[in-house]
Amino acid sequence: MRTSDSRTTGLPLPARDLKGQRHRSVRSGCPHGGGAARQMCESRGPARMELGSSWNAGSVAAVLPAGGSGERLGAARPKQFCTLQGRPLVSHTARALERISWISDIIVVVSLEHIETMKSIIQKYGHKRITVVEGGVTRHRSIFNGLKIFAENKLQKPEVVIIHDAVRPFVEEDILLKVVKAAKDHGAAGAIRPLVSTVIASSADGCLDHSLERARYRASEMPQAFLFDIIYQAYHQCNDYDLDYGTECLHLALKYCKTKAKLIEGSPDLWKVTYKWDLYAAESIIKDNLSQQVCVITDMKEDAVQVGFLLHETLKSHIKQVKGISVSLCKDDNCMQNIILGQCFNFICMHVKKSAFQETQQLVDILENANISTLYPVVLILVHLNVSENTSFSSEMEDLTRIKEFAREVKKKNILVYGLLIHYNKDDPQLQETVNSAATIISALIKDRNPELIGQLLVA
Amino acid sequence: MRTSDSRTTGLPLPARDLKGQRHRSVRSGCPHGGGAARQMCESRGPARMELGSSWNAGSVAAVLPAGGSGERLGAARPKQFCTLQGRPLVSHTARALERISWISDIIVVVSLEHIETMKSIIQKYGHKRITVVEGGVTRHRSIFNGLKIFAENKLQKPEVVIIHDAVRPFVEEDILLKVVKAAKDHGAAGAIRPLVSTVIASSADGCLDHSLERARYRASEMPQAFLFDIIYQAYHQCNDYDLDYGTECLHLALKYCKTKAKLIEGSPDLWKVTYKWDLYAAESIIKDNLSQQVCVITDMKEDAVQVGFLLHETLKSHIKQVKGISVSLCKDDNCMQNIILGQCFNFICMHVKKSAFQETQQLVDILENANISTLYPVVLILVHLNVSENTSFSSEMEDLTRIKEFAREVKKKNILVYGLLIHYNKDDPQLQETVNSAATIISALIKDRNPELIGQLLVA
Repeated sequence: MRTSDSRTTGLPLPARDLKGQRHRSVRSGCPHGGGAARQMCESRGPARMELGSSWNAGSVAAVLPAGGSGERLGAARPKQFCTLQGRPLVSHTARALERISWISDIIVVVSLEHIETMKSIIQKYGHKRITVVEGGVTRHRSIFNGLKIFAENKLQKPEVVIIHDAVRPFVEEDILLKVVKAAKDHGAAGAIRPLVSTVIASSADGCLDHSLERARYRASEMPQAFLFDIIYQAYHQCNDYDLDYGTECLHLALKYCKTKAKLIEGSPDLWKVTYKWDLYAAESIIKDNLSQQVCVITDMKEDAVQVGFLLHETLKSHIKQVKGISVSLCKDDNCMQNIILGQCFNFICMHVKKSAFQETQQLVDILENANISTLYPVVLILVHLNVSENTSFSSEMEDLTRIKEFAREVKKKNILVYGLLIHYNKDDPQLQETVNSAATIISALIKDRNPELIGQLLVA
Repeated sequence: MRTSDSRTTGLPLPARDLKGQRHRSVRSGCPHGGGAARQMCESRGPARMELGSSWNAGSVAAVLPAGGSGERLGAARPKQFCTLQGRPLVSHTARALERISWISDIIVVVSLEHIETMKSIIQKYGHKRITVVEGGVTRHRSIFNGLKIFAENKLQKPEVVIIHDAVRPFVEEDILLKVVKAAKDHGAAGAIRPLVSTVIASSADGCLDHSLERARYRASEMPQAFLFDIIYQAYHQCNDYDLDYGTECLHLALKYCKTKAKLIEGSPDLWKVTYKWDLYAAESIIKDNLSQQVCVITDMKEDAVQVGFLLHETLKSHIKQVKGISVSLCKDDNCMQNIILGQCFNFICMHVKKSAFQETQQLVDILENANISTLYPVVLILVHLNVSENTSFSSEMEDLTRIKEFAREVKKKNILVYGLLIHYNKDDPQLQETVNSAATIISALIKDRNPELIGQLLVA
């Protein structure tokens, strides 16, 4: 495996592929934004160490066939280009592979008509180490095209190649590591899952011929991994029937190279987005994972600090991880940097004075500079502590109008702004109840991430 | 099949089952509230006619095994008792069967520890024609227990019995009809789907032994249907190994009764809720289906009628079916009854005067009396047309407080109330833009059905 140093010092890179523009930049480990939402940029230390000592640079690459038509989904476009939280599914999956530093190259294979779409996805979402290749008319032909890039020395040939699906966005490093290691030992390996339904064979008249004993069979899932030479040889030798009607890479390795793949039990989240509701499910999983952490920022005024503390504590029963800093944003950029490195996608800014847009704008700038909202929408809730009894309705409406304008503006940066008003009287016996209500609303806004409700001023 | 008349005139009902309290009341076709959300109480005319002429009373019953532990879901309770839009999954599935008038009896089989839970579900959601039976330790033993109720004459023995899954809530009448008819002709029938993944067999060392050609096999799904005598005989004859380790009813009919089941291609929505994200997906499907129709009610004031008309037209680009009536609620109960029979779960009440809670309360009463919100939460959006420039903030806040209280109160009836303020000036050139914004917010509220945001006053 190439070491991190060899990459960051800028070794010469392989030539561009003729069919697809190569988009590449220096690898930076886990720069910002999670890939598969479940594991947004956790430390990858142990896995790297385990592999690092025994592998040479460039030993693992991945091929991601993304040429399917998505007929079963029934959507206007192929499922890999349907969006989840505003970003195409294939980008989520590419990110899941790309954040793993020991995968050197990722080949995304798309049909001719989607090459430009894929290139613009790569540019828009800042993907690295991805090469776009034109696919064939079937899945096997597309994978073969992807492998040829290495065989023809357009990219450095890896020792092991991972084959995954563009429509399985939640692949974890753990299973990738397992199939890669098993492929090194056995020549081929693939993830499997228990069957959800019994499998049956029908006779010619459409009646039951026999049913398979469910416990004896498994569903073959992705990722799979192969010694490059084995899978390439298998594709090279296989006949047109296999290329046109086959679906199983492990089968090709067995049939043409006598390589019996090692089967690895995978986790349920390897599931493949196949139908419309799988998109719903994937969207919910991503939202769920984006909602695990919130950061509460209060200004230094006594009231804000008091309510901020109460809110901070109360939010803990709604959201897994609540971080707080009691400083004005502008005073402590380092502190903000720490938050940003922690991959938080939800922020609460609490102010006593209204319309604290200047401070908020600073947070927006920091988020923007750090590219936090490139991959996922960020939620930003402006909490106004209203300490005065004598606010006029027109001033309130003016404020609301300003939030709306501000929200509309930063929406362009993929940041969703909502307002929340807390009427505050230090001696109010119902303060905790109000804060409970605020926490419930905040939690709902974060979990829903509804772009249509931005700029609204809610009341706790 | 028993005719509707024989049921509604109150023929003596079979004795109660010893193990489970029988909950039964007069069948009322498709009274209110859809079952499987996709088909909320559409007319079932053609299907009924097709069956009606050839079948005798009491000829079709259903067994719904709901005894699983839901290990794969990883939730605290079995998946069939997890809630979707506030109601347990098993209730959604039971409703999907119950709304079909030609199914005479539905046996829900649950484990001993869940019998009381199931009984309270039946009571709370007004289920009809359901008998609760105690399950066995495996799926086959549970189904067998369900069938025994008929064999032992505790309920009238049907000609055909449907076997379905408690965790497949979106079953349609169409497929039920197909399997029942095929069972009459062939003795057994079951729904099938194409395989999503390749199926493989492993050797003893955990390596690939062989893979099955995907096109030759199918996934066996539910519903299935059997001539009662065939499936009962199969269960009666089968051995302990089958009862303890088998999963496939069609297999038992083949093995013990030489009955080759007819296989019927089912639609994708027969899928089984197995993992946590399947619950997310099911919830999204239900929300999606609940959001297909909205009813706009305006009072008679000229301004309300004008904006109501604009809103009505604009909503059409957001929501499939927009109904409107330009009358005060209290004036036309018949009109409301029409709406209610149309199975609408979303209402917009537009008023010029604020705090029109009296009229709104009437709508709430109508919804409550018609049991509309028993099965699904109803969304009710109070639109205030603000025609005055001189509203004070405190009056606005007072109004907000009243909406919150009102919303909290009717939430107990499963009705979700939100407020929406439209500043209105007849000559405003931006009126259409404001109405566009209102329509977007309304559509978002309806699609999200977020119980945590009730009582908020949003601004278009």
